[in-house]
Amino acid sequence: MRAFEDFTEGLEFALGPHPVDRAEGLAFAAEFDPQPFHLDENAAEANLLGGLSVSGWHTCAMMMRMMCDSYLLNSTSQGSPGIDYVRWLAPVRPGDTLSGTARVASARLSAKRPTLGIATLETRLVNQTGATVLESRYALLLLTRQGAAA
Amino acid sequence: MRAFEDFTEGLEFALGPHPVDRAEGLAFAAEFDPQPFHLDENAAEANLLGGLSVSGWHTCAMMMRMMCDSYLLNSTSQGSPGIDYVRWLAPVRPGDTLSGTARVASARLSAKRPTLGIATLETRLVNQTGATVLESRYALLLLTRQGAAA
Repeated sequence: MRAFEDFTEGLEFALGPHPVDRAEGLAFAAEFDPQPFHLDENAAEANLLGGLSVSGWHTCAMMMRMMCDSYLLNSTSQGSPGIDYVRWLAPVRPGDTLSGTARVASARLSAKRPTLGIATLETRLVNQTGATVLESRYALLLLTRQGAAA
Repeated sequence: MRAFEDFTEGLEFALGPHPVDRAEGLAFAAEFDPQPFHLDENAAEANLLGGLSVSGWHTCAMMMRMMCDSYLLNSTSQGSPGIDYVRWLAPVRPGDTLSGTARVASARLSAKRPTLGIATLETRLVNQTGATVLESRYALLLLTRQGAAA
């Protein structure tokens, strides 16, 4: 079980691989992001992205699952107060396979709660051709070892 | 159909209301964010958030659906290059009802493509008690009227 103390600056976690399933992409878009370029091949051809792509929020959600499986579920994670940025750099297509990294950019103890720390992680996802499709930075709250033992 | 020219600075769109369904919250968490405090009442009691909450990414996805229904599906939207920030300010619970606003903070034409514009929108979601649960800012690409007619 990783606690705050284990999230040292520079530590890097591998993410994925995670296949982008076509039916799941269409189902996510139908529920949360029913813009034509996420649902309809013909409409997608006319869009800037030049073909069907999954919702950017779906890419974020898949990244979250990869982060859970890589390092969050086996940690003292207390969730996140927010995201500093997300950049959707290239379309994610049905049939793609995503992988990537999450790197600890910085880490500090909470000023208010000495048993809580805040790590900042920078993430990057690439597709099977090596093209970067997403970059983000976010804050992660973690209990210290002492906090977890309490 | 709203084109880029219609996204004038200060324009505000209403979002929601959108009910937060318990079964949907658990299903989203199981698929994308299976941290105990999103899945298990007992584990959630011990978490900082003090009880079961939906995944922050689920809140983002529900906001996306509200934005689609409010102003995106009837627009020349070409998608988004990214998010400037998301702040998860308070837990979103099963049974909550979310609503909010998206406000055009700025808008400019693309330097490279004169038929494309970039609007920056600031969003805010509140729950049924009026507590702010999420704030974000993101960029939206939109065709101009001329671009949409081409």
